[in-house]
Amino acid sequence: MNFEIISIGTELLLGQIVNTNARDISQLLSELGMNVYYTTVVGDNPERLSEALEIAAGRADGIITTGGLGPTKDDLSKETIARFCGLKCVTHEESKRKLIEIFEKQGRYMPKNNLKQADMPEGCIVLKNEFRTAPGAIIESDKATIIMLPGPPSEMKPMLLNEVRPYLEKLADSVIRSKVLRVFGVGESAAEEKVNSLIENQTNPTIAPYAKTGEMEFRLTAKAETESEADRLLKPLEEKVREILGDCVYAEGEDASMQETVVKLLREQGKTVTFAESCTGGLLAKKITEIPGSSECFNCSYVTYSNEQKEKILGVSHETLESYGAVSSQTALEMCRGAREAADADIAVSVTGIAGPGGGTPEKPVGLVYIGICADGLWESKKLLLNGSRDAIRERTSLYALDAVRRELIKNNSK
Amino acid sequence: MNFEIISIGTELLLGQIVNTNARDISQLLSELGMNVYYTTVVGDNPERLSEALEIAAGRADGIITTGGLGPTKDDLSKETIARFCGLKCVTHEESKRKLIEIFEKQGRYMPKNNLKQADMPEGCIVLKNEFRTAPGAIIESDKATIIMLPGPPSEMKPMLLNEVRPYLEKLADSVIRSKVLRVFGVGESAAEEKVNSLIENQTNPTIAPYAKTGEMEFRLTAKAETESEADRLLKPLEEKVREILGDCVYAEGEDASMQETVVKLLREQGKTVTFAESCTGGLLAKKITEIPGSSECFNCSYVTYSNEQKEKILGVSHETLESYGAVSSQTALEMCRGAREAADADIAVSVTGIAGPGGGTPEKPVGLVYIGICADGLWESKKLLLNGSRDAIRERTSLYALDAVRRELIKNNSK
Repeated sequence: MNFEIISIGTELLLGQIVNTNARDISQLLSELGMNVYYTTVVGDNPERLSEALEIAAGRADGIITTGGLGPTKDDLSKETIARFCGLKCVTHEESKRKLIEIFEKQGRYMPKNNLKQADMPEGCIVLKNEFRTAPGAIIESDKATIIMLPGPPSEMKPMLLNEVRPYLEKLADSVIRSKVLRVFGVGESAAEEKVNSLIENQTNPTIAPYAKTGEMEFRLTAKAETESEADRLLKPLEEKVREILGDCVYAEGEDASMQETVVKLLREQGKTVTFAESCTGGLLAKKITEIPGSSECFNCSYVTYSNEQKEKILGVSHETLESYGAVSSQTALEMCRGAREAADADIAVSVTGIAGPGGGTPEKPVGLVYIGICADGLWESKKLLLNGSRDAIRERTSLYALDAVRRELIKNNSK
Repeated sequence: MNFEIISIGTELLLGQIVNTNARDISQLLSELGMNVYYTTVVGDNPERLSEALEIAAGRADGIITTGGLGPTKDDLSKETIARFCGLKCVTHEESKRKLIEIFEKQGRYMPKNNLKQADMPEGCIVLKNEFRTAPGAIIESDKATIIMLPGPPSEMKPMLLNEVRPYLEKLADSVIRSKVLRVFGVGESAAEEKVNSLIENQTNPTIAPYAKTGEMEFRLTAKAETESEADRLLKPLEEKVREILGDCVYAEGEDASMQETVVKLLREQGKTVTFAESCTGGLLAKKITEIPGSSECFNCSYVTYSNEQKEKILGVSHETLESYGAVSSQTALEMCRGAREAADADIAVSVTGIAGPGGGTPEKPVGLVYIGICADGLWESKKLLLNGSRDAIRERTSLYALDAVRRELIKNNSK
């Protein structure tokens, strides 16, 4: 089946909010193997909404709308959609009762306009709103199946998952399973070329590359009649991709992160990490401590922005700073050695660089970064030349630094 | 003028990402007094994109697209749009040179498919991509003015503000001027109630409140024929709002941040700050060092996660930790005193708390946080009880901590 999403709300067109509803609905539809070719945003305007419905019904089997179900004068979705389907709205007694109950329970006076929330298109399936007053509805009309959901995400999401999902599952004739592989250390196009042979002529399963700040994601997707059949299709593709990309694949899953992988490996191996940060200014420590349980593998960290503090806290020698400068391989090396000692940690990573926008010179341009790593039997530095804004340079640097820790730790795994 | 936005990308239809680009573009168009009646999302599919272009060009004077300008085979926007306008794509020499330069600078091999990014529709205005390889374009065709922007927000946003905005400003027939006041330290509804009298019956100028994580934003907007006329309308409203909210207004502007205000005040007063972070784990230092020039007022900072390190680095007494625990007013006080001394800073702020999801007890629940501040003639702590996820608790804590620094600094201003 082929669905379209119509998000209704002038606040979306004014850019006052971001459309997370469309994302959440798309995700569910994709998971259920339903195709979404278009999504549209339209304001709280009956003519333009009718036009959008006309176009969508001409292209899709089903339409999911969000917004415009509330009590205010602007909320016109239900009336407009009912008219589009040639239906009248009639009072839904159960919803009316619930509405009155909610106000009574809160000891609040109910303004009369609230009652219009209980007027529903005749013959529709009413969807309960667990948290607030506006119910949703499903209309199975000749033009299309139209599912109306409220606009506030806190009301839309539970209704989508609890009421709409079971309804859609019955309509779905196939399952889609996806697996996301997160990749670091291969440039966007280089990585793609490597898996290009897999991407060409793909039908089912498919593989789609996606570049994020400093890293890549490959989404493997299979469509089948059952979950286990879809998983069976995915497996050989995943193996091939992993073979090509090797240990550049650092994690699996949509929400996985480099810091999560690093904390997991550290905890498994009972090791601790510390950082000596200059240009990332605390970003590395912040990332590690995002992960619950990081206190098991992280005791402390140093943000040494000034040269003085690099000497005082990390014991970087004055001569090194004088002869090579703060942004140098030598300083990076002394910083991580000093941090490892001060923190009594197993692995120490240092970062020193020029994040910009100011501070660059022809010899040491913005984007020049040195990363140092010090561990048992390892003491080395790496030079990076990064592009982008201050934020992007700091973000990418932190990925390189965490990846250095990861690579050191997986060495132990393969021993 | 009337614009439509077409966001191109299968990842949007699959719900893999949320469409922040449409929000950012809508915001700009609204600010310039341009109407947006529809926005559409369509996949990386030439037929469906052509259909979307046809519909949009029939309804709007201008179209802004995002996505599909990159080097991969999926990136088909430029070719499809050029064909829609009856134009050929030809190599844009300057973009080609820049492309090759970027790869050379990074010492990376350039896969051939990258060159297609420099093929531009004939006669178009080329929009520079400050940070990456894919340029954008403006086509002034009979069907519509079409502005093509890249998909990744980190590339789209600077192009929108630096290149597209001045172009659109010339087209606009009325001006909308907005001023955003950022507010911290007033609860959402309390602040709103205070300005409620201003919000009611407003027409021009208007005021709209927005709640963000831990803070609030009030957007004041006026529409007029000229900028100065719009500014003249805004001024008395701004004065009223500032009168009501007092020093809870910490900054002006969309992209302003608490850390920016703090760095500005510190630099103005020639002072330095340092942090002793436990549960925020580097977030405070990271925020301060986000701001270019922060090295003038920030030398170093300490992330002391373990008790041992609180003693060793900050000199917190073993007895304090034993008797009151790490999450206590006493520990917070000793942490900031120790950090101030160690860093030789003018102001030191400490943070210790339970960010969750684990680690809470009935006496010390998740969300309990102590903030300490130590400066000339000031040594105090504050207890917070915060709600939300680990991330939200850390984020809110960092705002409270930075706000404590701000309030200490503005005391000097009013002297």
